[in-house]
Amino acid sequence: MEPKAVQEYYPNEWNYCYGCGQRNDRGLHLRTYLDGEETVATFIPRPYDIAIPGYVYGGLIASLIDCHGTGTAAAAAYRAAGRDLGTDPPLRFVTASLHVDYVKPTPLGVPLQLRGRAREVRGRKVVVEINLLASGEVCARGEVVAVQMPESLTTP
Amino acid sequence: MEPKAVQEYYPNEWNYCYGCGQRNDRGLHLRTYLDGEETVATFIPRPYDIAIPGYVYGGLIASLIDCHGTGTAAAAAYRAAGRDLGTDPPLRFVTASLHVDYVKPTPLGVPLQLRGRAREVRGRKVVVEINLLASGEVCARGEVVAVQMPESLTTP
Repeated sequence: MEPKAVQEYYPNEWNYCYGCGQRNDRGLHLRTYLDGEETVATFIPRPYDIAIPGYVYGGLIASLIDCHGTGTAAAAAYRAAGRDLGTDPPLRFVTASLHVDYVKPTPLGVPLQLRGRAREVRGRKVVVEINLLASGEVCARGEVVAVQMPESLTTP
Repeated sequence: MEPKAVQEYYPNEWNYCYGCGQRNDRGLHLRTYLDGEETVATFIPRPYDIAIPGYVYGGLIASLIDCHGTGTAAAAAYRAAGRDLGTDPPLRFVTASLHVDYVKPTPLGVPLQLRGRAREVRGRKVVVEINLLASGEVCARGEVVAVQMPESLTTP
């Protein structure tokens, strides 16, 4: 059986995010998979995801880190609760803060790999560290402070 | 005469950024204008720039802050050098680090306003603070550490 991505367990009504929603027709459809204690995702930038010729624009890198971060946070929260991914009530996270260090220019034309790890799980908050790599080299490092979605947003 | 945006002064070969390049056919075409000591930009998210229904996804917010940040950095560097925008040699900045605090959910369906201010201009580095507002309310705060583009990137 193929493993399912964290985002494939999101409830339908919260699965429209441009970066990682599986139901956004125009979106990036980022998918975060478990890999032991870590999480991993892959994305191939399109030719127009350009900063200057040859390199990926920083906003895409921030988006990928953001979405892989909230996915990693959800996975960590399920694990901390001793629950299987996708069991009810759903654990869905949003970003409280995002920090990205652009370590070196990220080349266009190769797959980007994101690796994430939850550094802290406390109450409704999860702190996630992400590395973004191209051809095995770290091009960006991110930190995402994710919080469980407030009730005010989850009741339409 | 209509005022020109900072990005309209970027040299053609560095004007392809997905977020703010004026020559990227698929991009967002963000435009940063001077407003006294500050800079201002406006962007209207598309319906698919969604996080969860009714709200803008965080990656777009990060992208807008990033591009308005590097535009604000360029404007501040020209000003600090006593030079007019667009004079040679060009001053074009890239992002060393980006921090975004998501203060409250950013609503879809209204124009977003970005206001920027350079907090520090030192050598090749400019630190910029950005507020992103919707209907007059601050929804996100950003800090961009921008550095003048390294020579290695500017010689194709």
